[in-house]
This record gives sequence, C-alpha cells and structure tokens, in this order.
Amino acid sequence: MEKSTCEVILQPIGKHIRIPVGTTLLDAARQAGVELVAICGGEGVCGTCRVCPVSGPVSPPSLTEQAELTPADLSAGMRLACETEVLGDVKVDIPPESFTTPQRLQVEGQEAPPELAPAVAALDVDAPPPSLDDLRSDLTRLREALPDPDIHTGLPVLATISETLRRNNWRVRLALRGDELVAILPPGEGLYGLAVDVGTTKLAAYLVNLENGDTVAKSGAMNPQIAYGEDVISRINHANQHANGAKTLQGRLVETLNGLVDELCAQAGVTPGQVVEAVIVGNTAMHHLFAGLPVKQLGESPYVAAVSDAMEIPSAELGLCLAPGAVIYLPPNVAGYVGADHVSMLLGADLQETAKTTIALDIGTNTEISLFHGRKHWSCSCASGPAFEGAHISDGMRAAPGAVERVRIDGEAVQVHTIGEQPAIGICGSGILDAVAGLVKAGLVDKRGALKGEHPRLVPDDKNSAFILVPAAQSGTGRDVHVTRQDVNEIQLAKGAIRAGLEILLVEAGIEAREIQQFIVAGAFGTYLDLDSAIAIGMFPELPRERFQQVGNAAGSGAKRLLLSNRLRQVATEIAQAVQYVELAKHPDFMKVYVKALGL
Amino acid sequence: MEKSTCEVILQPIGKHIRIPVGTTLLDAARQAGVELVAICGGEGVCGTCRVCPVSGPVSPPSLTEQAELTPADLSAGMRLACETEVLGDVKVDIPPESFTTPQRLQVEGQEAPPELAPAVAALDVDAPPPSLDDLRSDLTRLREALPDPDIHTGLPVLATISETLRRNNWRVRLALRGDELVAILPPGEGLYGLAVDVGTTKLAAYLVNLENGDTVAKSGAMNPQIAYGEDVISRINHANQHANGAKTLQGRLVETLNGLVDELCAQAGVTPGQVVEAVIVGNTAMHHLFAGLPVKQLGESPYVAAVSDAMEIPSAELGLCLAPGAVIYLPPNVAGYVGADHVSMLLGADLQETAKTTIALDIGTNTEISLFHGRKHWSCSCASGPAFEGAHISDGMRAAPGAVERVRIDGEAVQVHTIGEQPAIGICGSGILDAVAGLVKAGLVDKRGALKGEHPRLVPDDKNSAFILVPAAQSGTGRDVHVTRQDVNEIQLAKGAIRAGLEILLVEAGIEAREIQQFIVAGAFGTYLDLDSAIAIGMFPELPRERFQQVGNAAGSGAKRLLLSNRLRQVATEIAQAVQYVELAKHPDFMKVYVKALGL
Repeated sequence: MEKSTCEVILQPIGKHIRIPVGTTLLDAARQAGVELVAICGGEGVCGTCRVCPVSGPVSPPSLTEQAELTPADLSAGMRLACETEVLGDVKVDIPPESFTTPQRLQVEGQEAPPELAPAVAALDVDAPPPSLDDLRSDLTRLREALPDPDIHTGLPVLATISETLRRNNWRVRLALRGDELVAILPPGEGLYGLAVDVGTTKLAAYLVNLENGDTVAKSGAMNPQIAYGEDVISRINHANQHANGAKTLQGRLVETLNGLVDELCAQAGVTPGQVVEAVIVGNTAMHHLFAGLPVKQLGESPYVAAVSDAMEIPSAELGLCLAPGAVIYLPPNVAGYVGADHVSMLLGADLQETAKTTIALDIGTNTEISLFHGRKHWSCSCASGPAFEGAHISDGMRAAPGAVERVRIDGEAVQVHTIGEQPAIGICGSGILDAVAGLVKAGLVDKRGALKGEHPRLVPDDKNSAFILVPAAQSGTGRDVHVTRQDVNEIQLAKGAIRAGLEILLVEAGIEAREIQQFIVAGAFGTYLDLDSAIAIGMFPELPRERFQQVGNAAGSGAKRLLLSNRLRQVATEIAQAVQYVELAKHPDFMKVYVKALGL
Repeated sequence: MEKSTCEVILQPIGKHIRIPVGTTLLDAARQAGVELVAICGGEGVCGTCRVCPVSGPVSPPSLTEQAELTPADLSAGMRLACETEVLGDVKVDIPPESFTTPQRLQVEGQEAPPELAPAVAALDVDAPPPSLDDLRSDLTRLREALPDPDIHTGLPVLATISETLRRNNWRVRLALRGDELVAILPPGEGLYGLAVDVGTTKLAAYLVNLENGDTVAKSGAMNPQIAYGEDVISRINHANQHANGAKTLQGRLVETLNGLVDELCAQAGVTPGQVVEAVIVGNTAMHHLFAGLPVKQLGESPYVAAVSDAMEIPSAELGLCLAPGAVIYLPPNVAGYVGADHVSMLLGADLQETAKTTIALDIGTNTEISLFHGRKHWSCSCASGPAFEGAHISDGMRAAPGAVERVRIDGEAVQVHTIGEQPAIGICGSGILDAVAGLVKAGLVDKRGALKGEHPRLVPDDKNSAFILVPAAQSGTGRDVHVTRQDVNEIQLAKGAIRAGLEILLVEAGIEAREIQQFIVAGAFGTYLDLDSAIAIGMFPELPRERFQQVGNAAGSGAKRLLLSNRLRQVATEIAQAVQYVELAKHPDFMKVYVKALGL
C-alpha cells in the first residue's frame, strides 16, 4: 500500500497532504482541510473548482472539463479539481477565486508622517489648435504653451498626444517628472502613485494620492511565481534551467501586478492612466526577476547582483500598465541577498537618521538584519530557511485560514488559536514558534531539541517523537495536528541563524546585546510573532519589552514614502552606500557563534 | 462577357491586368508579363509560386496547397499562384523570392566625404572579477573600471552584462554614447551603424563602419506596407480604419528592416549586436508609422504632424534588433508632408551651407521642393501624384524588369529600351516622361494633351486616342504597350503640380527661374529621368544643362552622413527650424500658376 499513496502540495498556502493515488484534487484539498469553491458539490457541472496543476502526473482532461473550460483555460493548464485525479506526487496552484475563504495577505506598516515632494507634478495647459495658417506639430504647439518648452517625451506618451489634445479641446493636464512628460490627461484629473512590496511569497500594493499623500486603496495577492518554486533559489534555478524561464517568472508577476493596479484603481475610482509613478521593492532576486536582469550569477558563489544601484525604469518597458510615461523606481540593493526591500524597510521604520543603537530585521527565508550604532551601520543576511513560512514543518502551512497561529501550554492544558477561528488544518510560523517556546518552558524539550518528559499530548518515538497540538477529533483534517522533534530542529536552525547573524553584527560593532536601545521587527511574521516566545527560544536577546517594536510591513511603508519624496530616494542611495555589509560565511567567529545560538 | 472579367493588381510592381474570372493567379501574372518562379510549371507540386492575396475574392486553399504550405504560411494568407483562382477584383502581394528576376531597388547617392564624429565610441575595459571578499554588483565593478564611472545603462544592456563579462573573462569592449552604455561586446569587435531610407515604395539600407565611415554593405527591399495601400493617404486610412492597423503597418516594416539588418550583417561578417546606432529617414507619414506616432490628424485638414522635432528612440522599444542599447535617430520633419527624408536629402546633397541659388527636389507621389537663395530657404510639398511611379497610367508599372524606361520618337521610327532588356510589359516613370516629351516634340499632342496628327503608331479615338510604343507582336504580354490621351493628362497634372510649386517658391524669393544656379534632382526617378524630356514638357525650367545635377538617393546618403556626425544632426535641426514652409493650398497665386504650368 506504501506505493499507492502520493503527496500533493497545495499552493500558494503551502499545505502538504499524502493521499491514495487516484484521489481527485478536490478530495485531496478536502482531506487537507482546504475548502475550494465547488458549488455543485463535486459533480463536475458548475466549473467553479478551478485549479492549475504545475508539476507531477494527473489524469488527462475529461470530456466534462473540455465542456466546462474554455480552450484558453485548457491550454493554460487550468483543470477542474473534482475531475482531476492525482497519479503521483503533484504540486497544484489554487487561484484566489477558488478558495472559499480569503487569504490573509497584508500587514499594514506603521506610518511616519509623509514627506510630500513627489517626483511627478501636474501642470494645466491650454494649447492653441492648428489651422492652415499654423501647421506646427502637436508636440510643438503643446511645448510652446508651457512656461518652459524644453520638455522630453517618450514614444508611449507621444502615441496619445494627438487624440488627447483634440478630445479635450486643447486644454489638458500634464504630468511632468522634472522635464520629462509622463502623461497628458483630461483637465482636472488627480495624480496617483503605486507602491508595491514584492515578497517572495506575497505582494502588497498601495495606491497613493500624490498631492496629499493619502493611501486611497490597498490590496494584496500571492506572488504567482510561487508555482515555480517556493524560495528564491528554486526560482533562480527555474529561470536558469528553462528556456524563457526568467521571462515566464517576470510575465506572471507583471500580469498579477496589472491585476492589482486595476483593482486598486477600481477601489479608488481612478484610471490606470492617472498612476504616474511607481515604487517597487523586493529582495535582490525578486528585484532582478522583475526587472529582467540576469540571475544566473545570483545562484552561484559568490552570489553577486547584476545591479545594485537604484534604477528608474519606464513602466512601458516592463509591460506594467500605468500612465504611458510612468517610471518605476527600484531602490538600491545593498549586497548579496540584502536587497532593496531591506533599504525600504529601514526607511519605512524611519531609521535613516536614527542616533539610537538599533537592530532592525525582517524575518523570512532569508532574514536581513541591520545594526545602527554610533552613526555607523552594518548589515548581514542570514539563511534562516522557510520554517517560519510553514515549510519543512510536518504540519506546516502559510498564514491562511485554519492555521494554528497561537499556542499556550499550561500544565496539561494546551490552548490553540487558529486564523479565522476555523478548525485547525496546520500550523503557521507564529504558531510553531509559540509551540516550541511552550515546549521549552514546560521542560518538554532538551537543549538538542529532543521531545521528552511526561505529558498526555506527548507521543514518544525513538526517532521522531511528537506533541499533539490539536487532536484528530477537533481538527479540520480528521488527523492530529502536531509538532515533531524534526519540527523543533527546523526551528532551531532558523532561530540559530538569525541569532548568530545578530551576534556577529554586535561583534563587528564591538557592543553587547544589552546595549541595543531599540529592536525593530518588521514583516508579517514579525508582526504576528509573540515576543516572549521569540526570546524564550533564544531567537531574540532578553531585553526590556518596551525596546521592541513590531512595525508591520515597513518595506511597504518605505515604498510609499519613497513614492512621495524624491529626497528620501537620495537617502536610500546613501544608506546603501554607507552600510557595511558583513558576509557571515567568511566571518571567523560565525561557526562558533552559530553553534552556540542553536541551543534551546 | 463584360461581367466575367476582373482586374488583378500585382504588387509590389504595380502591374494591372484584366482577366476572365476563374483564371489562376499564375496565369494572370503570365498574361501580365510578370514571371513568377514556378519550377514545376504550374502543376501544384513544387510549392515555389508563393503569393499573398491581400484583398478581393479568391478560391479557398486547395488540398494541394494544404499539403504544400505550412499551417503558419496558410494562416498568414500565403497561397500557391498556380492553385488560386481569381473570383473578382483582386490585389496580390508577390514576395521577392517568387520573382524570377530581381527587382531594381536601389539608386546610390553621390557621396560627400564623410565627417567622422559618430555618437557612439568604443572603450576597452578590464573589470575585476568578484569574490567572497568583493561582492559588489557586476555593474558597479564595470563602472569602477572606467575612467568616468558615471554612466547610464538601460535594461536591455543590463540583461547582457553578467554573461558577457564572464564569457570574456572580465575583459570587454564597451560601446558608449556619451555617458549612455549602448552595448557590452567581446574585446576587439568593431562598431557599425545602420542608415535606412524608408520610402513609401522602397527601402534602401546601408551598414556603415563607424570608425572609418566606409559603407560595408547595402541592400534594398520593397516597403511591405505597400500591401496595405500604395500611397501615404491609403496607408493612413488603413491605420485609422482597422483595429491595430497602425500596429500592423509598423510591425511589417520592422520585420522587413530586421531582415535587412540580418542580410547586411551577413554580407559584412558582423553581428547585429555590433550595430550600435541607426538613422532612419522617411516622409512624415513613414516617420510616424515607423515610430508608432498617431497618424489620424495627418490624414485630416490641416494635416499636422504629431511630432516635428528630431527624435532619438531606443531600438529595443521599436523591436529593431540591433545592439541592446542602440538608439535610432530620426531627423526632424519640417511641416505638412515635407518630412525628415527631405532634410536628409538636403544634407546628402551637401546643401546645408550652400551660397548658390539652388533648387533641390525629390520627385514622388508628393514632391518636396526646396529653394535656397540669399541665405534664405523656402520649401513646399506638391501633390504630384503617383503617375511617375507608373500608377494611374494605362500600361504603367514600377521600374521593374520589362518596363519601358527610354523612348525616342524620330519621325516614324519609335525606339524603346526596357529595364533588363526584357520584352516590354509596361511603362515606368522615366519611360512615360520620355514618351510624352517625344509626342510633344513630334507635334502629336496639343496643349491640352489630346493626341492628334498623322503617325502609323497613332490610334485615333474620340475619347481616348492612343500611341503604340510597343506593338503586341513584340511585347511581353501579347498586347500593345501604349500611351493614351488619359496618360498624357496624368503626366500633365503631375508635372504641372511640380512646376507650379517651383514657381511659387521663386515668387516667394522674388527671383526668376533663370537665376537658379544649381538644380538638384534626387531620388530614383530623378536619377533615371531624361532632363531634356523633363524640360520639353515644362516640368523643369529651361536652364543650361550643366546647372542640373542628378544626385541619386541623396536621402540615403544624408542618413549615412547623419550616422557619422553628431554635428550634422544639429545642422538638420537648424535646417528644419530655418526653412520657411510655403503652404501652396492657400497661396494667392497658386491656381493661376498651376493652370499655366499644366500646358504642354
């Protein structure tokens, strides 16, 4: 019977399930506790349970599917989950509309008051119409109606000039970026900017009024590249190993971003043509894949970027549908995996001029850490792995409905809280952190991570003992949701890497952990994590709690601030140039510090 | 029987033929005297007689065609001429490879010695490779190996940086356009430029060595847009009346240009990546359609351009496959239909600083004329029509093999010469000009253009008397090749428009024709035309013959000069700004002058 089961990975939530070969994808999802829209109850008649198998063998499209799906859907690989049988290990991408419950996509950043000096400004113009006595070109007549006629215009804007001038009776509003014409708009239309934090897993997008700095709409989405690899290394491998692999990753991302732009514009009642500037932040790999820069060398030692400078790219060149001359600003990357999103995070947390001794970090598959001390600034990148994203954890999943996000072990009582208060189907990052901290505090785990001691929920095993967080009877899957010794070890590796990076920065600065005056934790996981748990397992140093700040999506807030202020873009470049990047792999103390940091 | 015939227009040569409905396209071409490649003799087995019907009804693809042609060919509308039956009036595009004889595509311009100061220059660089001790980005390490690190680079160049540096062991040749990086090349590779004259009918392309100014390869092609309309107005109409019409016209042109680039590079043994700059000249409509600028307003009174300034466009933006950062320079347009090709023609004929009283013209469907006098410069555009391209002439055709290009009427003897010395199948521009001049000199045509008098070749008719140039027995079509009264009238309209424009410029300058010190005739027709004939019919004024210069494709020569000299680009802008554009339609003397100019 061993051979007749196989594993299904449900993306983007990262839930794994082992099921018999021949199970339909709809049943596999149900057994994993993931509810798909299936109005007809799996009878193959409603066409709503649409999913996209991205790798592994499945049954060929049935006649029902050929009837229910369009040829375009079929050729894009879309399937009906109720009709598709799993024939081996399979990875499936579930589009947002096929989930019954919305995903938790976004964490707001704390916002510093905006500094309002955007790159693009409006100018209202009346141009004289042409006649047989005045045959000057449209651009010439527009130009000569300006206070300063010396403007530059690219082809995408020029393609709109003649119709826009005529349709608005030669009275228009120009969006000008210095002397560069970004858009020719009907009179009176407001100017907006787009800020996006492109995470490896999630995208957070904001539409900002450039005149008053207000965020007028926000939305989130999963990064569609997740279907091609969960972490940056597997995406880089995909780009390198497939013809047009990089183009595909770029295209999928741009397509999703265009969808977000449409959604944000609809929310705010504006047109994409009014979006005259964008700031997009991401780690070095996301940055390079978005811009179409080469990534091969990013995947090979010594892992160098193609470009680290800040970039300004015409949106038309990347296919992002904004105002025809809109520019996308990408902040500078620092070095290695410390990318533009880290620079943006520091600005979002308003740290650019901090005089306090400060740690700032954003925990992810790679965790970037900055230390500010005595007007100096060090940073490093730790390979913390995807455990806090729920990957490599036996019952792990991303922060989605049904994920255990809080755990309290109080003697024999075990309390859990799930996202959306749904029956538990797995554990997300903050839940596994709490669980490990609870086990440590309860004395149920030794320094090396082995589970031991007496507890009704503890299931001993020579190799992989387990602790049951939610018994089968109460779970959403009909199986126990548990933490295993292997899971504890994964968390040890992750927190050890983070703590070691932090300690090495302190060594570089020549200070002790207790001298840290503020400790900034950014990002979604950083916002939901329980500080006591993080300290209990030794991921963070023991400091007075008031020195910690959980600032939410500071990278996104930084992107918004960069959208509104040209001066901050200069600051971003100064930060990237001033920071001393510490390469942990070659630091003489690293191994010693790391081994010490692994202990619980 | 009247109803059962229909007309076939064979493009790009412009030959018309009336044939019975149901005739195959191969037979229609044969009856028109146009030889198509058909290795099997029309048996439908060789697949060589490929043609593309672009409008009008033809039989559906036969089983033979479905077997011989690829699905891509069929969906692109390609057919076999031997299998396709004509069911009504039809226009057919014949690809170059389907002609048995090559087309005459190119006329060389006289060349002024080149001024060598191109926009792009080479710089050899050794960059330090990265290591764990030096994690700077590829761009940073390249930049810092330069004498001046402050360079700009667009995405298409950056996409090549990492691989090119590594493949060449960090020793590369940069192509720099001021501070803009155009290409990163293997060490030692030479830099080349592309110059193209985009005519409404023909393209002439040159590859130029930017270091010594040598033309290393040249080629020509028909403008593929001809399938969508013979003249600029019908192309503008196509762009306005079809969804994506303008995109199609642009795409077809770019595709043909990319083919020419490949061919030129193969001739010269270089790669398209070494082509670091381009200059493309054309009339205002060709210019706008190539650049994707709006053309609707060009087709409506008062016929203004969207843009008249010189433009620099990234080649990548237009899909022209040159060096990744190559820029395409388009010279300025003057006004109305006096476009960038006219400015380029003036530079090609080295007239930018002329102190002589000079007329310079390039005869086409629109004829642009410049008059230089006393350091002033006037220009106008005359609607001379397509008669000199062979259109609207009963036996007219373009300058292709079998076209009568020289005619001498000497008493009863009529001598003709055809292109390629093939049996006559029609008459091209220089032939019809000679024929009308010969008829005038022989006293066989009156002032209003009626053919009359006694001549064995004259066939009287109340409405449309005709003069036989080549009797049926000697022609390539089995029918007479003749000139009709209507043809004479067409030539009157054309030459009248040109002469009237010229006279109006003289009026503006306040001088007489005899004061013209040099008379420059550019372009293919201008090169082949017989000056005595042009003077005999009153198209050109009677001047000493040594004042005339037939300078060939001066627009193409000008494009090459603009490729090699940044200073001349400034001169081009000065010319466009200094010229006084004369709008003939509203000139008070125009009608009077025009009516007078019509007479023979």
